[in-house]
Amino acid sequence: MSTDHDAAGLKASILVEALPYIRRFAGKIVVVKYGGNALAGTSEHDALSLFAEDIVLMRLVGMRPVVVHGGGPQISDLMKRLGKETEFVDGLRVTDAETVDIARMVLKGQVNPQIVAAINVHGHYAVGVSGVDGGLIRATARDERLGFVGDVTEINPEVIHGLLDDEFVPVIATIGSDINGQAYNINADTVAGAIAESLGAEKLVYLTDIEGLRRDVADAASLIRQTTADELDQLVADGIIAGGMIPKVASCIHAVRNGVGNAHILDGRIAHVLLLEIFTDSGIGTMIKGLHGTTGLQGDDA
Amino acid sequence: MSTDHDAAGLKASILVEALPYIRRFAGKIVVVKYGGNALAGTSEHDALSLFAEDIVLMRLVGMRPVVVHGGGPQISDLMKRLGKETEFVDGLRVTDAETVDIARMVLKGQVNPQIVAAINVHGHYAVGVSGVDGGLIRATARDERLGFVGDVTEINPEVIHGLLDDEFVPVIATIGSDINGQAYNINADTVAGAIAESLGAEKLVYLTDIEGLRRDVADAASLIRQTTADELDQLVADGIIAGGMIPKVASCIHAVRNGVGNAHILDGRIAHVLLLEIFTDSGIGTMIKGLHGTTGLQGDDA
Amino acid sequence: MSTDHDAAGLKASILVEALPYIRRFAGKIVVVKYGGNALAGTSEHDALSLFAEDIVLMRLVGMRPVVVHGGGPQISDLMKRLGKETEFVDGLRVTDAETVDIARMVLKGQVNPQIVAAINVHGHYAVGVSGVDGGLIRATARDERLGFVGDVTEINPEVIHGLLDDEFVPVIATIGSDINGQAYNINADTVAGAIAESLGAEKLVYLTDIEGLRRDVADAASLIRQTTADELDQLVADGIIAGGMIPKVASCIHAVRNGVGNAHILDGRIAHVLLLEIFTDSGIGTMIKGLHGTTGLQGDDA
Amino acid sequence: MSTDHDAAGLKASILVEALPYIRRFAGKIVVVKYGGNALAGTSEHDALSLFAEDIVLMRLVGMRPVVVHGGGPQISDLMKRLGKETEFVDGLRVTDAETVDIARMVLKGQVNPQIVAAINVHGHYAVGVSGVDGGLIRATARDERLGFVGDVTEINPEVIHGLLDDEFVPVIATIGSDINGQAYNINADTVAGAIAESLGAEKLVYLTDIEGLRRDVADAASLIRQTTADELDQLVADGIIAGGMIPKVASCIHAVRNGVGNAHILDGRIAHVLLLEIFTDSGIGTMIKGLHGTTGLQGDDA
Amino acid sequence: MSTDHDAAGLKASILVEALPYIRRFAGKIVVVKYGGNALAGTSEHDALSLFAEDIVLMRLVGMRPVVVHGGGPQISDLMKRLGKETEFVDGLRVTDAETVDIARMVLKGQVNPQIVAAINVHGHYAVGVSGVDGGLIRATARDERLGFVGDVTEINPEVIHGLLDDEFVPVIATIGSDINGQAYNINADTVAGAIAESLGAEKLVYLTDIEGLRRDVADAASLIRQTTADELDQLVADGIIAGGMIPKVASCIHAVRNGVGNAHILDGRIAHVLLLEIFTDSGIGTMIKGLHGTTGLQGDDA
Amino acid sequence: MSTDHDAAGLKASILVEALPYIRRFAGKIVVVKYGGNALAGTSEHDALSLFAEDIVLMRLVGMRPVVVHGGGPQISDLMKRLGKETEFVDGLRVTDAETVDIARMVLKGQVNPQIVAAINVHGHYAVGVSGVDGGLIRATARDERLGFVGDVTEINPEVIHGLLDDEFVPVIATIGSDINGQAYNINADTVAGAIAESLGAEKLVYLTDIEGLRRDVADAASLIRQTTADELDQLVADGIIAGGMIPKVASCIHAVRNGVGNAHILDGRIAHVLLLEIFTDSGIGTMIKGLHGTTGLQGDDA
Repeated sequence: MSTDHDAAGLKASILVEALPYIRRFAGKIVVVKYGGNALAGTSEHDALSLFAEDIVLMRLVGMRPVVVHGGGPQISDLMKRLGKETEFVDGLRVTDAETVDIARMVLKGQVNPQIVAAINVHGHYAVGVSGVDGGLIRATARDERLGFVGDVTEINPEVIHGLLDDEFVPVIATIGSDINGQAYNINADTVAGAIAESLGAEKLVYLTDIEGLRRDVADAASLIRQTTADELDQLVADGIIAGGMIPKVASCIHAVRNGVGNAHILDGRIAHVLLLEIFTDSGIGTMIKGLHGTTGLQGDDA
Repeated sequence: MSTDHDAAGLKASILVEALPYIRRFAGKIVVVKYGGNALAGTSEHDALSLFAEDIVLMRLVGMRPVVVHGGGPQISDLMKRLGKETEFVDGLRVTDAETVDIARMVLKGQVNPQIVAAINVHGHYAVGVSGVDGGLIRATARDERLGFVGDVTEINPEVIHGLLDDEFVPVIATIGSDINGQAYNINADTVAGAIAESLGAEKLVYLTDIEGLRRDVADAASLIRQTTADELDQLVADGIIAGGMIPKVASCIHAVRNGVGNAHILDGRIAHVLLLEIFTDSGIGTMIKGLHGTTGLQGDDA
Repeated sequence: MSTDHDAAGLKASILVEALPYIRRFAGKIVVVKYGGNALAGTSEHDALSLFAEDIVLMRLVGMRPVVVHGGGPQISDLMKRLGKETEFVDGLRVTDAETVDIARMVLKGQVNPQIVAAINVHGHYAVGVSGVDGGLIRATARDERLGFVGDVTEINPEVIHGLLDDEFVPVIATIGSDINGQAYNINADTVAGAIAESLGAEKLVYLTDIEGLRRDVADAASLIRQTTADELDQLVADGIIAGGMIPKVASCIHAVRNGVGNAHILDGRIAHVLLLEIFTDSGIGTMIKGLHGTTGLQGDDA
Repeated sequence: MSTDHDAAGLKASILVEALPYIRRFAGKIVVVKYGGNALAGTSEHDALSLFAEDIVLMRLVGMRPVVVHGGGPQISDLMKRLGKETEFVDGLRVTDAETVDIARMVLKGQVNPQIVAAINVHGHYAVGVSGVDGGLIRATARDERLGFVGDVTEINPEVIHGLLDDEFVPVIATIGSDINGQAYNINADTVAGAIAESLGAEKLVYLTDIEGLRRDVADAASLIRQTTADELDQLVADGIIAGGMIPKVASCIHAVRNGVGNAHILDGRIAHVLLLEIFTDSGIGTMIKGLHGTTGLQGDDA
Repeated sequence: MSTDHDAAGLKASILVEALPYIRRFAGKIVVVKYGGNALAGTSEHDALSLFAEDIVLMRLVGMRPVVVHGGGPQISDLMKRLGKETEFVDGLRVTDAETVDIARMVLKGQVNPQIVAAINVHGHYAVGVSGVDGGLIRATARDERLGFVGDVTEINPEVIHGLLDDEFVPVIATIGSDINGQAYNINADTVAGAIAESLGAEKLVYLTDIEGLRRDVADAASLIRQTTADELDQLVADGIIAGGMIPKVASCIHAVRNGVGNAHILDGRIAHVLLLEIFTDSGIGTMIKGLHGTTGLQGDDA
Repeated sequence: MSTDHDAAGLKASILVEALPYIRRFAGKIVVVKYGGNALAGTSEHDALSLFAEDIVLMRLVGMRPVVVHGGGPQISDLMKRLGKETEFVDGLRVTDAETVDIARMVLKGQVNPQIVAAINVHGHYAVGVSGVDGGLIRATARDERLGFVGDVTEINPEVIHGLLDDEFVPVIATIGSDINGQAYNINADTVAGAIAESLGAEKLVYLTDIEGLRRDVADAASLIRQTTADELDQLVADGIIAGGMIPKVASCIHAVRNGVGNAHILDGRIAHVLLLEIFTDSGIGTMIKGLHGTTGLQGDDA
């Protein structure tokens, strides 16, 4: 019986620890960028199920999660199956009309409904949209030679606000369109930041396959628990942050300087990493503090 | 100048003719089934543009259109490109797991955003969803041997109501899912009817590539302008209505017997056929009168 | 059959032309000054019926029309029947107590209900009020020697807002009252402008018996299609605009400088001139452009 | 000082007496028929001012008064001034087209704005409408030989509800119209009852020039303080109630049998008779008790 | 009968006199400080009943009264019964932990429910709260040596707004608490002023056992009917206002300088003194005029 | 680091376990009877703090807890301090006027604000009321010889609904009043049941100092985990449930037969017992299943 009591006490203490966070984040919007690479630590299906549970829990306790996803590997896979070669111009990958159609099919027609379905196993929560729906993401060509690779020119978040007001979880495929209805493929990391800004999100979260940012790439002990946009500017300038992390980090910097509470780089390989970040005192991964954000570490500034 | 006056008078008379219909249908839901075959009379792009204009006009004058679409030819096309063979069991076409994934990709990722984009050239009107979103279409296997061919078991129209309340035009891809999130391909004609019933629609419209139903298939003069569910039952029993028209006609019959105002079989090859049906005294195509429906022919029973 | 198709095509094209205007003016308030002289080109009854149809159509497609009317000829008529002589002081017409009572009777008790009744043949749309109702028009004597000729000192548009919110069409007789309840007769052209300003109307429309303003009174070809408040100031200063047009033009100038979108001088003798101005690309009559108004001519600045 | 105290005590006691009535009638609709004859005991202007004060007080303490008025003497007066003879058919007075136009002018254009203005001296309270406005009173000819004497066929109280919801006091001129917009003159006593029923009024009050109903016309001591519809049926059958009181009494009987709380026949010659009836324990005049009405006499059944 | 008529006329005139005040104060918040000493002129029970009637009447005619009370004599009484001695430090009365518990018991558990019950004899109107409820009154120790004597640091009026929105009459016991939940006893006069300011009250009323403020304490004829914050500053500086009136007068001064309409010092010994102050032209007691307040004397500035 | 991972996994699993319960109970009302005896297992202050944390957590995750409390021991204590003897009539304890005043002081003035203060350490959550406030508990004498011991005759839950709608936690002291404002002391167990019924609560929870109900009082192993109203009727009839448990059990039986979801007898000595009952699969104590209640044991019937 004392074991029972101990277990009960532990359960109770964890619930009590979560309490101030539930209060703090009630009604707050959290934009989560979910990428294929975040799933590396476990089988894809299980990772998606765990992620879906986290999203549902966040929504159930009154938060308003928004999921943004890309799907690079899946696009490459379908292109390969269709025997479609990628063209290059001056060494840069070109997204021709057929490629952007394939990207749209994969993102909106394959990855998006998989995420929606995984969430909706728990109820009628998620609704998948792309940037074409309700004019959500207005885009323009980045460089004509690259074809239909787009930059975001405008976010029209009415459709997202409508879904959130109806208590749905929007799941967003990062296809945008120009004024003529032409589709563009857009970097999902960048879209996540732009969406978070347009919604005035409390948190912008990138699920990745790294533990977090490091001050010394070679030294696991140099993991950055908490930092600022200014420090990140320096780390980028110094070349410490590089490669595929650049769009994420640039979006984090821009977001926290434009009204988003905090930004987070989390390790998507840890089960329920979203819950652990949000509902526990210790936090996890790397947090970039915004001007108005609340800190996940101390948990006492409500 | 008299020509100017004549033109002005004609314009005015047409606007005045449309007047009672605008009053009559304000706030009413019209479910339009849009199929690839409806586009046959003209180039596909133009047909889609004209259709999109009609939908936008209906919405602008206060109606609440809902678009339901399939995409059979496009699915076949991608399957062919992927070298995917269709299996048969006892002579019936099987939708295996790969096929339903392809169908989902095409419907949600290709056809749906094309329609959405065509409408959204005019503004931020349309939002595309599939039956997976918000649990809209719950399905179950029709016959296990056929794989993932689904029958509708339940429509959860909350997501559609939410979009309509936010003044969006829902565009619905007819993929459903079961309770475990497994996708099913569902006949789009049937889904259109089920959606219309669940929304209590004023009209259910099928855009086809025929002029309308005929009492004698071989006789163009036998076009049915207006009929009832009972008469259609008889025409089906007599084998006069057959083949691909069966799901449409069966849905029309079921719908008008379950609260839908009227159902219509229209010729999608006629430019602006929706506007002509709705806003002119003469109507067009075949109308199946419901118990509570208003008649497009006389136009004076408001 | 080709004739049928042509007619259908023409109908469709006119409906499609009207589309962007319906979008543009949805929910917008349009104040229409309706005067006896506007009816000259046809029998009075028909002209009123056509006008009523236009008002109902505007209301049905979501606009919020407000009708302001005078009734000078009808007042003169009743005065004659009652053997009431008009007095003059220094050559100016005097409105004594009996005269203002007669004016009130005619405007509120004869002209106003005629307009209301003509509109309400189409439904329960119109509600007639005068400036006394809900304290709508507060007036003061213009010149004590002229008796009860009033100037507007204050518009209290609550009653109009209430009626518009309840989806009624307000029809306003231009009798005002002072703080003691004394009635005053007020120039209807002036009231229309003041009402339009107080409501922040999108359009202020004067229905007259001329084709529009001209730069050279003698030259029909000098019709002004579009102009500005500044140019009108000059035309008045130059004496080109004079006589009975002065109150209308002065009200137009004041209105577009005080928040009203555009003002229009239209030829009330043209059947359905309101519909033609609002719903067609070519516009009609003279438009005075406001700072924030949309232009009827190009139709492409939505 | 003791006089001061006494006066204060008296004031206080009267305010306190009024208390339960204010509670009881908060939000309740009271339809008051106001007729020319009610003004006999004092100068017309003063009587109207006192009446207006009562209506404003009722509104200020949260009741929702509705005024219905006729204007027979004023119509006769204008007809005389216009030299218009009344025709008779089989001894019955005929309302020809000209007569109904005169009646409309007088009721809507003279009497109605006088009442509105008297109330609006106290604020922007009253709004005058006729039965034509918002289709309020739908009428049909009583007898073709009598011309445009109408019977009520339908009350459409939306415009009255709208005005009450906007906290206005509707003042209703008893002109109705048929479906073609033709005006009819309707007995104001009858309209008052029909309006009260359609609004589910708490009270229907007739202001008259008699002290109340009597059981013996010749005996002032036989004044009826409180009665029922059944007793009134008997008094009418016995010929004790006759002449001009018939439409009032018939309307009272019909009203209390169709949902109106109580009906009252009051002496309009007593200053502030409405206040005294409503806000004092002793009541005044004759009350016809309805099934659900509260009694003015005991004042303790809240 | 003439006597009847005279009585009716008097009743009517008093009701009519009250009219503009009901209009003026509709929806306005009036904070009334009710103290034991105000009850001196009559038996306690009767005084409370009369006070309760006034509060209910104010509420019934659409005002929003808020009652604030202390209970010094009742606290002293219970302390005596419990044999609790009052401690003094440097001549100042100390509120130790036991004393503040006693004060809380008496104020919240005895005086508050008595007032609530007296009001609720008339209906479900009053709800009693203390400064602990909803965090209404946040307090801090005035002087550590005095124990739990508190100063107001913050008013959180949400609970009061909620009760007012639900049409209840809040009755407030002046116990506050610090951030740890420790109770403090707070001067009720001061709390009344702070509550009035936080609510933006139209009136702050102190019911006392004096006729009003005097310019010469010894001269009843020097009663101040109307004054300003500036004059009161002077009277306090001159020592003319002193003793127990200081907290009341200081609160009045602070309140009218911080948005409260007017403040009043009334003689609670006069029956229905609240009604007489609010609903009669002559006013009563001393009024301190605020910047935006309406004057009770002239009654004509609505 | 594996310990870290284990701890993270455990935290995550507990959060995930709580998920379906948060969904299930969102917006649901839970009435908790909190009694002095429930605090026995630990120091009073700590028990109250833990209880307050549970209430706040329930509220934060969207439930609507309502606390009902008595305070027998505290009443006895004050009576002793005041030297007040308890009278007996025929062996029954009499609540004379002085006693009910003491009970009111203690319940409303001592116990109630202690609970409120403990909750409000976490925010402005709790508002304390008694049955007198807003006429919440209407009572009548149970037996005249017993004095002011009351039975509930009516619950008027408007004040509770108002507080819940404003997102407060009502804390209710179980003093009622009759129509004359006379206070009555009422059994808190009974009040809790009546309140739960009037609110249509999802759960009625009694915190006690026993582990739960037993089928054999002497056998700890006979603890009843789940039962029905019918079985409890039998256990009472058999004398197995007796003494102080009778009012609790009778209230549970009545409540689940009158619309309350489930009732629970919990061991208030276990820290965070409310959280453990509500948010874990295993449940705790004894549950009495209602007709529409959800079961705490299986946790899978959402």
